[in-house]
Amino acid sequence: MNSRMIQFILGKILIVEGTLLLLPFLVSLLYKEPQGTYYVGIATICFLLGGLISLKRPANTCFYLKEGCIATSLSWIFMSIFGALPFYVTGEIPSFTDALFETISGFTTTGASILSNVEALSHTALFWRSFTHWIGGMGVLVFLLAIMPLSGGSHINLMRAESPGPSVGKLVPKVRQTARILYLIYIGLTLLEIVLLLFGKIPLFDALTTSFGTAGTGGFGIWNSSIGNYSAYIQWVVTIFMMLFGVNFNFFYFVLFRQYAKAFSMEEVRYYFLVILSAIIIILPDVRQITGNFPDALRHTAFQVASIITTTGFSTMDFDTWSQTSRTVLVLLMFIGACAGSTGGGIKVSRFIMLVKSMKRELMSYIHPKSVMKIKMDGKPVEHGIARSVNVYFISFVMIFVISVLLLSLEGNDLTTNFTAVAATINNIGPGLELVGPTRNFGFFHMFSKYVLMFDMLAGRLELFPLLILFYPTLWKEMFERRVHLYSGTNTTHIPKEFRRKKA
Amino acid sequence: MNSRMIQFILGKILIVEGTLLLLPFLVSLLYKEPQGTYYVGIATICFLLGGLISLKRPANTCFYLKEGCIATSLSWIFMSIFGALPFYVTGEIPSFTDALFETISGFTTTGASILSNVEALSHTALFWRSFTHWIGGMGVLVFLLAIMPLSGGSHINLMRAESPGPSVGKLVPKVRQTARILYLIYIGLTLLEIVLLLFGKIPLFDALTTSFGTAGTGGFGIWNSSIGNYSAYIQWVVTIFMMLFGVNFNFFYFVLFRQYAKAFSMEEVRYYFLVILSAIIIILPDVRQITGNFPDALRHTAFQVASIITTTGFSTMDFDTWSQTSRTVLVLLMFIGACAGSTGGGIKVSRFIMLVKSMKRELMSYIHPKSVMKIKMDGKPVEHGIARSVNVYFISFVMIFVISVLLLSLEGNDLTTNFTAVAATINNIGPGLELVGPTRNFGFFHMFSKYVLMFDMLAGRLELFPLLILFYPTLWKEMFERRVHLYSGTNTTHIPKEFRRKKA
Repeated sequence: MNSRMIQFILGKILIVEGTLLLLPFLVSLLYKEPQGTYYVGIATICFLLGGLISLKRPANTCFYLKEGCIATSLSWIFMSIFGALPFYVTGEIPSFTDALFETISGFTTTGASILSNVEALSHTALFWRSFTHWIGGMGVLVFLLAIMPLSGGSHINLMRAESPGPSVGKLVPKVRQTARILYLIYIGLTLLEIVLLLFGKIPLFDALTTSFGTAGTGGFGIWNSSIGNYSAYIQWVVTIFMMLFGVNFNFFYFVLFRQYAKAFSMEEVRYYFLVILSAIIIILPDVRQITGNFPDALRHTAFQVASIITTTGFSTMDFDTWSQTSRTVLVLLMFIGACAGSTGGGIKVSRFIMLVKSMKRELMSYIHPKSVMKIKMDGKPVEHGIARSVNVYFISFVMIFVISVLLLSLEGNDLTTNFTAVAATINNIGPGLELVGPTRNFGFFHMFSKYVLMFDMLAGRLELFPLLILFYPTLWKEMFERRVHLYSGTNTTHIPKEFRRKKA
Repeated sequence: MNSRMIQFILGKILIVEGTLLLLPFLVSLLYKEPQGTYYVGIATICFLLGGLISLKRPANTCFYLKEGCIATSLSWIFMSIFGALPFYVTGEIPSFTDALFETISGFTTTGASILSNVEALSHTALFWRSFTHWIGGMGVLVFLLAIMPLSGGSHINLMRAESPGPSVGKLVPKVRQTARILYLIYIGLTLLEIVLLLFGKIPLFDALTTSFGTAGTGGFGIWNSSIGNYSAYIQWVVTIFMMLFGVNFNFFYFVLFRQYAKAFSMEEVRYYFLVILSAIIIILPDVRQITGNFPDALRHTAFQVASIITTTGFSTMDFDTWSQTSRTVLVLLMFIGACAGSTGGGIKVSRFIMLVKSMKRELMSYIHPKSVMKIKMDGKPVEHGIARSVNVYFISFVMIFVISVLLLSLEGNDLTTNFTAVAATINNIGPGLELVGPTRNFGFFHMFSKYVLMFDMLAGRLELFPLLILFYPTLWKEMFERRVHLYSGTNTTHIPKEFRRKKA
């Protein structure tokens, strides 16, 4: 295990976070809010600490998937702890657990809040809160990849650990180049949304924070009514951009480089829009009865469907009051989630496609026991290892889900609340139903339940295994044993061959 | 496709059912109830129809897994329709949908009832209702196997389609012999329970029906309070036998033939009892508060845990009033289910063991990407195909589950009701929570929801694929095409080579 390298990456991450913390400081200067100084203070701590532990570049910069996973998980935990400090030290969120919940919810682009009155926050805090979505959306390690030169297979192992979806595709042969292209698409789309929102005559601050929330598919709003009191134009712009940010970014790359045939033959993207359309058709008549007219019904339905399937979590209406069928459809969308390779969460459309194909193959094996069928995606056969991974991913997901619901049930709330609270966090959505519905918040949970939900948010964002690996005893046992070997002198691999003592 | 053979088996099944219908007729004579004549009438129809369609033994008695699945699914559907007739024609259950629901619930050993007042039924109907559990528990096709000589690999394909669990083990080289041994163990254990219950000084009728419900892990009671108004002794006997009927029958076989080492090293059986013990420990303090004393609390807890994990569904208390934690634990047990190769339902302990091992293997592949790990059960490596099947089974299970909850939600009941109604039927348990709790019944559902739940009961009992295969278009297309070929003369495979017309 290359623990020096993990340490080095953690240091770099802290320096990046310190830099990012200077942005809310600028906001505080603009709005003349005293909180800004705290942000500078915490940024300084990040610089010092980060600089200290990443002072010496390790000689061996090469590392494997295992290290990639650990570096990623620890980075996200570190980032969340330091990112929560501003909320806590300024007193805007008096409990550290709550501040950590809000920050993890931000970075993981969940958007579940413990605040009952968002509008009481300072502009500085609101900006940082929404900005965490934007940082977390594409992933800070992917950002690091785009700027940091690493050797060997290290890049792809970092990217594999942080990027959503069953398999990581390199758009261009070089991982670093891929990371840069992804970030450029991300920035471009975000800027486009900001401009379009400004056309709707909302303040720049609103346009920025709303765009951050959309781009990261996060869902933190700056008003208690979320997007509800904006104009119909704004709501439509947000709807369309939520849908776009839920699309596999490879699609945009293909479109950008005019490979239209490739772009429009992507199975995942086509099914994604098919699911959106079907959900709208099922829910529309129900909302039509509530709003009384068609255009409003269509707007609210499209908005809510896009918001849930992309796991953004914005709302324009209290969908907890919709019919049981509509609510059940929304709960289903929570699990399906967005496309792989987007900023959205959930299980991902491509995984569902593969699961359904696995089911079909199993049925076929009953009819033709001797036939060998391979699962295909976009016309190409899927590697056996990936198909198995997808199955195991789904199983692990359900297991973590069930255990979380069980742990939450210790508090005694109703099953719908517990079920949708876990669904809304592990899928990185935000609001659920009943006590965690869109007009409520997560503040009422006990501390223990909050930590369970924080785990779920991180597990959902990092796609389970990179986080689970931290809890796998074999890993630590091996690491510990190797250390002991090193110190006790029984490990001689670091000594050149000719100088080694001969065995007795 | 050997459709003649399928038809032959269906005919035999009807004759078996006709014979079984004579038992409730005997009961009617004993209690001097007029309903008995209807049972004889329906038995006669079964004999005539069954005899007619199985009149000629097909020349080719050999058939494959595909035919085994179709024969099994159709057998269960036929049996249920004819088994429902007595309830309907005697007017004891006035709606045919309800009568069918009750019968499918009986044969699939679910025990979910649409009756609000069980005690209003005649002795004849009560006997038939409980007896369907006993028939369905071990499976009527396994019974057919035990008595009917079939050639080739046909036996194992029928058994594979009907027997619960990820892989079917033959205890002895001959399938027919295996089926006989299983039935002997089944009959032996049932008789033992009847005798022990009679020691508790309850009427023979009660001892018989209760034993049928326990042996099949069904759960139909003959009193509105289920097992609640029997003595503590009776409740303990039922508890122990519920646990026993949830054990893999291979265990009893090994014990019977004194292969103790093999018996007690069965991983599944050990984990099964471990889960039971853990559940009791978690729930006990909660029930202790309700009953006020330890012995009662232990009895009720052990009873309810055994009843739910074995998917029997008897109750001694209204567990819907227990704490949220206890209820959530019970819901979890619903899914875990009993051992493979028992009469119980659910996903099965062995599948869960394999799922957890798959997860472990996946985590290991992150730590040591190049290592090749095989999943082992009872020390022996699990075939790749079976491990994959288990994964796909779980996925298909979740999909059917989710779609069923969605379809039930059309009625507008709360999520807990819909969720536990599906859980209680697909896992063949019986009672759920809220509106389908142990003191309620399934009668209030609309006809459409009832058919969804009937499908779930059959899918759960037949372990999904044998039933799903009926809905697979390729199968029917192939069958249809072959027929067309045969009749249009383009298929020449039945003509000896030398006489075939040469191609132009």
